[in-house]
Amino acid sequence: MLKLYHGPAAANGLKVLIALHEKALDFQRVYLDLHRFEQHEPWYVAINPDGQVPTLVHDGFVLTQSSVINEYLEDAFPDAPALRPRDAQGAARTRGWNKYIDENYMEAVSMHGWKFRLSDLTRQMDPAEFETYMQRIPLERQRRKWRAVRAGFPDEALAAAIVKVGEALDRLELQLTDTPWLAGGQYTLADVNFFATGGNSIERLFPQLLAGDIRPRFRDWLGRINARPAVQAALATPAQ
Amino acid sequence: MLKLYHGPAAANGLKVLIALHEKALDFQRVYLDLHRFEQHEPWYVAINPDGQVPTLVHDGFVLTQSSVINEYLEDAFPDAPALRPRDAQGAARTRGWNKYIDENYMEAVSMHGWKFRLSDLTRQMDPAEFETYMQRIPLERQRRKWRAVRAGFPDEALAAAIVKVGEALDRLELQLTDTPWLAGGQYTLADVNFFATGGNSIERLFPQLLAGDIRPRFRDWLGRINARPAVQAALATPAQ
Repeated sequence: MLKLYHGPAAANGLKVLIALHEKALDFQRVYLDLHRFEQHEPWYVAINPDGQVPTLVHDGFVLTQSSVINEYLEDAFPDAPALRPRDAQGAARTRGWNKYIDENYMEAVSMHGWKFRLSDLTRQMDPAEFETYMQRIPLERQRRKWRAVRAGFPDEALAAAIVKVGEALDRLELQLTDTPWLAGGQYTLADVNFFATGGNSIERLFPQLLAGDIRPRFRDWLGRINARPAVQAALATPAQ
Repeated sequence: MLKLYHGPAAANGLKVLIALHEKALDFQRVYLDLHRFEQHEPWYVAINPDGQVPTLVHDGFVLTQSSVINEYLEDAFPDAPALRPRDAQGAARTRGWNKYIDENYMEAVSMHGWKFRLSDLTRQMDPAEFETYMQRIPLERQRRKWRAVRAGFPDEALAAAIVKVGEALDRLELQLTDTPWLAGGQYTLADVNFFATGGNSIERLFPQLLAGDIRPRFRDWLGRINARPAVQAALATPAQ
């Protein structure tokens, strides 16, 4: 049995939701309200000591980190539709993109996503209540990020993040002049990762990066992914 | 044919050298003198646009990023001795550790490694000569790191890095109370990664973390890895 603990159908949670739907795997869901810090509650930290979503449990085996989870699904369900190329070169191209996305793109998008969604929420909280939640966060770097979004991320950091997002979109645009998908001729975990990390949200968070008719290949790629039934199903995951 | 472009037998280059020797694969080597910034010379940047080592070229297919390279070797040479468990759970545990090492441990060790090896070298350089080298570096974050090591990394950053290294060693120690190797019963790419990123260098760079008889499992694990013929062969790779 597969059981997914997740928050909203966005970012790392969306990555795994899309993979599960693309592979047509049955799974149970447990929704956590991240705005109420449910991911740091003791019952959940007992499952995922980092207090982060998503977590996937497969017949009692606990998996964390969405990129690791999605590769696991490829290994554990080899007869389901493949999102990782079966040839070594295609798998390497997929992993190269995933590494780039995880280490360069994700945090840059995330900073602006947090600002957009969590600035007001955290500022409106009673300071003592906020501190109570902070004390429960297992990872020091996550605690720092929550404190930073409440205080307001520094302008230079926000600007540097926009530069990084623009570079990632340039890199995607360049790749798509050569191949229809990021890792070649096949839609892979790399496309799922880039899309879930920052696909539909780019227009809202970084309108300046899509002004005019620039980045046409990104728009086309986005449209092709949004048209996939599995992606529509994943995006429609209820927040409850 | 396999051709490895590498610097000293340390860190990311050592990771791939160990994997190649463990798998008993024949390969050619091209040594780059990183202290002369050969990794940023145009002929090499034409092969690896990031201007970083290592790069592996397999029959014309160019691979960068040591963690991606080492997984590729598993896929491309399935009949060679395996460093990635063949079961899905073992592979996921290996990748979980690799992700943790790449995103948390590596940079912390690296900062102190750079300080140890490159502070004097960069400070003794003529400013104009140093700037000439800087202009050739493709990655902005690498340029920043070279400038920072010359200026001296901030004390708080160095202290924070020591905390991170200590946390990683704690995590390793805890794992080794349960299993002989990081990902379970089998020596894997995760052990190779942790060892190459910061194994033998810990005693020299962070003596305070090994004072007294603490971290006995780390010492034992280090001894078992150093005793492997493939590791000895990799460590003996000539710097030329």
